[in-house]
Amino acid sequence: MLRGMRNLFLLAAALAVAAFHGHAASPARPNVVVILADDLGYGDLGCYGHPTIRTPHLDRMAAEGMRFTDFYSAAEVCTPSRAALLTGRYPVRSGMAHDRFRVLRNRSTGHLPAGELTLAEALKTRGYATGMVGKWHLGVWSINPAGHPRRHGFDTFLGLPHSNDMDPAAAAPRGAPGRPDQDPAWWNAPLYRNEDLVARPADQTQLTRRYTDEAVRFIRDHRQQPFFLYVAHTFPHVPLFASGAFRGTSRRGLYGDVVEELDWSVGQVLETLRREGLAENTFVFFSSDNGPWLIMNQQGGSAGLLREGKGSTWEGGMRVPGIAWWPGHIPGGAVNTNLASLLDLFPTALTFAGGTPPPQRPLDGFDLSDTLLRGAPGPRDTMFFYRGTRLFAARHGRWKLHLWTQKGYGQPQPDAHEPPLLFDVNADPGESFNLSARHPEAVADVLKQIEKHRATLTTAPSQLESVEPPAAKPQADPSPRR
Amino acid sequence: MLRGMRNLFLLAAALAVAAFHGHAASPARPNVVVILADDLGYGDLGCYGHPTIRTPHLDRMAAEGMRFTDFYSAAEVCTPSRAALLTGRYPVRSGMAHDRFRVLRNRSTGHLPAGELTLAEALKTRGYATGMVGKWHLGVWSINPAGHPRRHGFDTFLGLPHSNDMDPAAAAPRGAPGRPDQDPAWWNAPLYRNEDLVARPADQTQLTRRYTDEAVRFIRDHRQQPFFLYVAHTFPHVPLFASGAFRGTSRRGLYGDVVEELDWSVGQVLETLRREGLAENTFVFFSSDNGPWLIMNQQGGSAGLLREGKGSTWEGGMRVPGIAWWPGHIPGGAVNTNLASLLDLFPTALTFAGGTPPPQRPLDGFDLSDTLLRGAPGPRDTMFFYRGTRLFAARHGRWKLHLWTQKGYGQPQPDAHEPPLLFDVNADPGESFNLSARHPEAVADVLKQIEKHRATLTTAPSQLESVEPPAAKPQADPSPRR
Repeated sequence: MLRGMRNLFLLAAALAVAAFHGHAASPARPNVVVILADDLGYGDLGCYGHPTIRTPHLDRMAAEGMRFTDFYSAAEVCTPSRAALLTGRYPVRSGMAHDRFRVLRNRSTGHLPAGELTLAEALKTRGYATGMVGKWHLGVWSINPAGHPRRHGFDTFLGLPHSNDMDPAAAAPRGAPGRPDQDPAWWNAPLYRNEDLVARPADQTQLTRRYTDEAVRFIRDHRQQPFFLYVAHTFPHVPLFASGAFRGTSRRGLYGDVVEELDWSVGQVLETLRREGLAENTFVFFSSDNGPWLIMNQQGGSAGLLREGKGSTWEGGMRVPGIAWWPGHIPGGAVNTNLASLLDLFPTALTFAGGTPPPQRPLDGFDLSDTLLRGAPGPRDTMFFYRGTRLFAARHGRWKLHLWTQKGYGQPQPDAHEPPLLFDVNADPGESFNLSARHPEAVADVLKQIEKHRATLTTAPSQLESVEPPAAKPQADPSPRR
Repeated sequence: MLRGMRNLFLLAAALAVAAFHGHAASPARPNVVVILADDLGYGDLGCYGHPTIRTPHLDRMAAEGMRFTDFYSAAEVCTPSRAALLTGRYPVRSGMAHDRFRVLRNRSTGHLPAGELTLAEALKTRGYATGMVGKWHLGVWSINPAGHPRRHGFDTFLGLPHSNDMDPAAAAPRGAPGRPDQDPAWWNAPLYRNEDLVARPADQTQLTRRYTDEAVRFIRDHRQQPFFLYVAHTFPHVPLFASGAFRGTSRRGLYGDVVEELDWSVGQVLETLRREGLAENTFVFFSSDNGPWLIMNQQGGSAGLLREGKGSTWEGGMRVPGIAWWPGHIPGGAVNTNLASLLDLFPTALTFAGGTPPPQRPLDGFDLSDTLLRGAPGPRDTMFFYRGTRLFAARHGRWKLHLWTQKGYGQPQPDAHEPPLLFDVNADPGESFNLSARHPEAVADVLKQIEKHRATLTTAPSQLESVEPPAAKPQADPSPRR
């Protein structure tokens, strides 16, 4: 009898292990978590070499996962980059780019077109629960309800419609966004839960904590069902706010406080996945929407050794941190030197979920699953760099070609380059030594890639142009609801 | 009987373990290995954020040991920095600095004065065997035998008297040092074993391998006795040479090939220590003599996010990688943000060896043993930045004050600053935002530190001034010996 019970126990244990292994080893429908920082630069994390910003949780994420050296956002500023992340398509295709109005403003009527398929919508067809926390910036639903995240595949939402500097209060002084002595009373950022206004102004000192609590709750609530969680942090976009636990604690000053709180937040998300037993069944990707906002001086980040920052198509404007994590599937401590982009998250996550992108529209993303899981050579060999709707530059392998260049901010007109500037961004990641005269064959080769790309291109009418004029008399704010 | 034998066996095993533990756990007289790269920049290693130079062995060394974020060489160029490393004293004290002749030249008669106590000499008094491999640059013994490493505490020597560009052959074209298409025939670098010339020109493509073989052999030969090994690599100082196994293999180009071969070399040294059972009894420190030689363009390295490079007292000229390793004693994966310098290796190593620096002369190094072994706050709160014999700048805590600035190369006269420039190098490691007007109290505080330092200072007559004129008729080279 005793022996029989013991055998039964062993059998049950073996079955449990098999079930666990089946769960952990099979990539069938893993959860997907995308964590996006706002304006975080290539050089702003410990594991990317920053000397005074401490990011132990992201460093651990990289040590347990895969750190990309050549990872690109999809655009040089916020709105187009986020549109591209969610659609896998360059933003000129969806109308989410504009040469003068670079991003959606707080009274924009346009939004991500309904015809665009988002990663959230695609994963829903695979049975995923979908949630978003944070900054959306693909439509302002108080102006046009069709721009809401819940119209684009997300079951639930908690966050802001746009950047945190887009609703200055009357009290805001000149140059308010970049000031280190921030006062919450300078800003009117509206925080929504789903369609309901929760607070206006949102207490920005608590935003990172609030997003984190929401993300943790979403994970706990969905442990029985595959889920897609998109956490798009408001920071380190200016104005900078950190909670009391972080304010004044970083050697880097306020910017460091804010990034270190984001790092804490990433740690909370990963720890929740571990505690809930979901770590081996969840693909997590961390990145940034574009490079650092350099004109914000000490309130802006660092692109490390790269040239320029946010708003430009130099490397510092679009090469950003990229860290992938999926214990038991993505090898730990790996450094991936392949070209990759936010554009690739759409087809990659969909592949993990067992789906395929619909064939009827051009997709610019590549499926990274082989290079993530097996360290295979990456499928991407080109990257195109748009500023607004104009193609400024392209990378093909080691070569980066600039047809146009312009500083992110403070240079009114772009410089045209004929012949184009050519840099070997492997040997010269700082883009200092123009080699176009010495390598005309490389110039010709990248130009051919640009031609091929352009042949696939239809530029959609821009969504970023029209705004609702302010009402003659300011409207009363709707009363906040919980 | 069986039981008696077993007890005897257990006793023997216990004794063996005790002996082993005594060896591994006690910091009494650990071996000391200092590995110095030449002109390697702050941003040139994987673990310091470089995207295209792969340094898996140094990254592992950092993961198993301690990586410093605020580690400084002792001077802005080679000779003074090396003098300071070996003596723990700012080079103005030893006469190893000069405002015009920044380093010893290949016909210099001067050398590290006999009255200076080197780390090798100090460790010899503690019973250490001492060996040096690589570039000396503290005396040219073919001109003046008193400048030989064996006159300064090293039992054995294999290497070059000076930099690898100091003996151009007649065949060398203009701008030869920085050219990517190096030809060994352009150079006459003399390789010595002890006092004997082994090869001239040395085959520079084999230098890193040869140094490595010698270092490995030295370790194996001295496994029964405490030893001090100083490996001062010739590279990545220009001209750049890598062996066949590395040439053309790095994404970064020739500079990357060379650094990746150095990384391999570090891996060989650490692996030898592991295999010989010496890892837990050996303190290893890796660093660089100064920042990257930026005017060498793609043949020069990167200071990452720091300003300027070799030859300057901006951060890029003197803040360098610093990695400490001592398994079982120095905590693994630690990032140390305390101020530290090559100057500190002298008292630190001597403390580990159970010795104390002689009290009769001013020492500028601090004993890092507590911060290395226990992560205690570092003992150093100031760093002084000399260019030649003139104090250009000082750091105290987070504040860096520049009395003078000058680019490393290409700026004939320094700029004087009155009031001095003040940077918060924690918040602004790139030294972009001068805060002297906003923080006069910090200016005054650093000036007080400078005054205190100057009160301890006697500037010794420079050893770098006089050279032996070339003989009327060129002397025949002595025939190479093995």
